[in-house]
Parts: sequence; structure tokens; C-alpha cells
Amino acid sequence: MPPRPEGMGDDCAVTNLAEQNLWTTDSLIYGCHFDDSVSPENAGSKLLKRSLSDIAAMGGRPGVALLAGMLPGNSSIAWLERFFRGLADCAREYEVRIVGGDLAQSNMEWMTSLSLSGFAKRPLLRTSAKEGDTIWVTGALGGSFPGRHATFTPRMREGIWLGEESDSRHAVIDVTDGLAKDLPAILPPDCAASLDADRIPIHEDAVSLSRHSGKTPLSHAFTDGEDYELLFTVPAETPTEGFLSRWQQNLDTPVHRIGTIIHKNSESRIIDSRTRKPWKVGNGYQHF
Amino acid sequence: MPPRPEGMGDDCAVTNLAEQNLWTTDSLIYGCHFDDSVSPENAGSKLLKRSLSDIAAMGGRPGVALLAGMLPGNSSIAWLERFFRGLADCAREYEVRIVGGDLAQSNMEWMTSLSLSGFAKRPLLRTSAKEGDTIWVTGALGGSFPGRHATFTPRMREGIWLGEESDSRHAVIDVTDGLAKDLPAILPPDCAASLDADRIPIHEDAVSLSRHSGKTPLSHAFTDGEDYELLFTVPAETPTEGFLSRWQQNLDTPVHRIGTIIHKNSESRIIDSRTRKPWKVGNGYQHF
Repeated sequence: MPPRPEGMGDDCAVTNLAEQNLWTTDSLIYGCHFDDSVSPENAGSKLLKRSLSDIAAMGGRPGVALLAGMLPGNSSIAWLERFFRGLADCAREYEVRIVGGDLAQSNMEWMTSLSLSGFAKRPLLRTSAKEGDTIWVTGALGGSFPGRHATFTPRMREGIWLGEESDSRHAVIDVTDGLAKDLPAILPPDCAASLDADRIPIHEDAVSLSRHSGKTPLSHAFTDGEDYELLFTVPAETPTEGFLSRWQQNLDTPVHRIGTIIHKNSESRIIDSRTRKPWKVGNGYQHF
Repeated sequence: MPPRPEGMGDDCAVTNLAEQNLWTTDSLIYGCHFDDSVSPENAGSKLLKRSLSDIAAMGGRPGVALLAGMLPGNSSIAWLERFFRGLADCAREYEVRIVGGDLAQSNMEWMTSLSLSGFAKRPLLRTSAKEGDTIWVTGALGGSFPGRHATFTPRMREGIWLGEESDSRHAVIDVTDGLAKDLPAILPPDCAASLDADRIPIHEDAVSLSRHSGKTPLSHAFTDGEDYELLFTVPAETPTEGFLSRWQQNLDTPVHRIGTIIHKNSESRIIDSRTRKPWKVGNGYQHF
């Protein structure tokens, strides 16, 4: 066991935040972000991985974390022990130090939130995209519930590679609410995305789900969310083949070019590249 | 309006955490930390002041904050706007920059948590106390519900003075759970506190409450909690009169010496200095 951080159990954690320039917070709510089909260990690791994915989407490396638990008085201690074990194992795997936290009693709901610091030499902002950039996504999308949303691997190496190794300009976001909602978040205000429907990587989970959901696999891929894949842009002046081959030399994760940023000619933020008409595959996850 | 921090609305806040060495998180839960008798503005400022009080108890100055909201879908927008105004006004008053956050939908409960960074030249740890030290507390205790718990002033200047101006060793904690529970938290393992019942500053709110509660004012002062006063130790070798006069030259806040740290001769962590028997005035706030 490493020595516990100074200040653990004190009013504040005492920790050196020098060299940290990223900061994010995420919540995990029973009945919203997980349910009884998720093991306590996976719930614990998911809480941290949600924030790790945010750090990855900035091209950063994680640092230290604080945990806030808001738990009903009748919470199972055995369940909590497994939850904290999952969280601690995940923290160890990603070299995150959990330096403190706070526990409060809620009335009935089970909620936790976690704050995570990080460091990026060159933070990859959502606002960096320009007209003409191509649009890329890692892995495959859709059908993350009920399984993958709790067992995914945050794309840390991919984010760090984009931030530190790639010599191009990139706008990056992690896909949490679905392409339909997350893609517009990296478009410049006067631009739209022209998407190639045939190139969007559809996860086999989305295909399985479509057998009973009444929705197409593409619709699942486009709107389900909680994929925790990186969606990013590559400058027009960076040759696609060169970028792809550098990626493949360094990373095992599949990556697909799914479209291009174009000037916006109508209200639509997403256009079908083949028909040049507004894309009609549904909306992303609505939080409220 | 200052320019919004880089990264606001991005996956992470991009903020310089250099020079920050303190980190704390606190929650605010409807039905636990506030109810309908508290104005939305006071609820908003209370969320931040709880963490400010923690920074004060380390002898630190506050830095940047992240907010996590877990709110039911039917939350009133008008109420939230007033809550955020109270939070923002408080942040401005204490020169805290709120650099980002996260909103998630809960099922029915209303909860927020806030993380706050800070900086202390010399962090004042709970573990610094020694046998023979005298025990002090700022302000007056008890009866903080239903009023003061939401309108208190965090003891920032007093904490900074103890950390930066006083040349003595101090163990410090803020009184959130009541003296009964917070005092043992700053005692060395083999020590007890010998308390002078007559010297414990009792707030007039505790006197009012005692008229109907069936408890004595001293019992309220000892067990109510949410006083957000600073409880601290002064080394035996620092003359009481000298310390008190330096305090009074620099600070307006009343301060009282309420006891001494002695060697523990029984199981009791708190002793009545007059009878030398275990102190019997009840327990502090139990979170679970």
C-alpha cells in the first residue's frame, strides 16, 4: 500500500496540483447511469471512466480525484465495498490518485460524483474545427446499453496521441450523448457536417438491439450515446491516407473518417453527403 | 463580465491549477442541508460556503470550483436561476472562479456537489495537536438550524491568519458536526480534551431553541453542528494572553479558550475539567 495522501480525512486533501491544467466532474446516479444489471465493481469503475473519457477528449493524462457520495442510510455496506474496490482498481490501472472526498446521507436516491484533474501539453478544444476539416470517430457506435456503457475502455492513448504525437490541429469530443448531439458540439457556428452514412461504424450491439427495438442499426449508432468513443476532426490540409497510416502505426483502435465539415446552407447542422439533404436519423440523448 | 474560462462547455475546464495544493468537495442535498425555509440564493451560497469553510480550516485561500448538479426533470427554472445567482454572487465575493461542471438528471432528489481548490502556504492539519495544547473556538455555537446554517460567514480571514500570520503550531477543524464529534477529530490518539463547561461560547440561537427543545443551551452548543466556526489548538508554550491579544489586534471575531488537551486516562475522549469525569452532554451529528 502506498502511504495515504497528506490531508486524507482532513478538511481538505493536501495535494500538489502544479502541472495540472484540466478539471472535470461527472456524476453516477442509480437508475440513470447504472442499474442492478451492472456489477458494483463496474459501477465503481464507470464513475471514474466517465471522467477519464473527458480527460482523453482533451488529449490529457489524468491526475488526482475527489469523490462525493450522496447515499441513502440503508445502503448495503457489502455493495459499497465492491463499488469502492471497482473504483480503486480502476484508479490504479489509470494511475489516478483518489485524494479525498465527502459522504452525505441522501433521502432515498443513490448518487456519487467525482472530480478529476489532468494535464494536457496542448488541450484539444471543441472549438478548434474549421470548414473543410474531415470528421473521424474511433471504435464503433450504438447499442452500448445494457452492456458496454459499464465496461468500456476510455480512449486515453488515442487522446494522448492526438494531443502529443499528431502534429495536426484537432477538435475532439467524447461521444456520450450520441453523434446526433455530440457532432454539432464541435462544428463552427456557420458550418454543418456532411456525413457519409455508409462509413459510420456500427457496433454489433446496435445490430443486435435493432432486431427488437424497431429502430435501424444506424439509428442506434447515431443516437444511443454512452459510446465513450472519440469524435474528432482532421484539418483539410492533412492528407487522409497519411493521417490514417500514422494512426495505424501507433494505435490498435479502429478509426473511421465519417464525413466533412462544410459551410451551412440551411438550418440543418447535419447533412447526408449523398442526398445533400438534412440527415434524418433522430436525436441524441436529452438530459432534461 | 470577465471572459469565460477556456474550456467552459468543453469536455474539461482548462485552468491553471499551479499554486493550488488544497482540494475539497461538499454536497448540498434538499431535505438534508436545506429545505423550503431557505431562499434559493442562500442555498446556492451555502453550497460554496461549506467548501470555503473547509479551505479556511486548512489556513488556505480559495481558488477555482467545479459544480455537479443532479436534478430531477421537473426542477423549477426560476428557482435554479436564483440558486445560481446566489452561488455566483458568493463566488464573486470570495474571488472563486467557477470553471465548469456537469448536469445530470436524477430520478426525484435534488442534489449538488461542488469541488473547490485552494492554496495554503502552511496547511493546518488536524493531526498537529499535542498534549498540553489549549483548545479554542471562534464565534459561538449551537442552534444553527433553522437560520444561521444557511447564512453563516466562513471564517476565511481567521483561517488565513492562523496559517500565515500566527507563528504558532495549530491543529484546525471547522465545526460542522458539533463539538462532540469534531473535537475528538483533532485529538492525538492517546489524548483527551478537558473542557471548561463555563467557557464554551453558547449562541443566542441555542438559548432560544432550548426554550422548546427540552435540551439545555450547552447541549445545543455541544451537539447541533453546522456552526462553521473554527476549532483549533494553541501550543502549551504559547502564552494565552499573548495569543489572545495578537488575535484581537488583527481580527474582530470573538475567540474563546475552552479547554486543554490532556493525557487520556480512561475511554472518554472528553472530560469535564471541573469534575474530571467523562463529559455527558450528548453526541454530535451522525451522518449515517
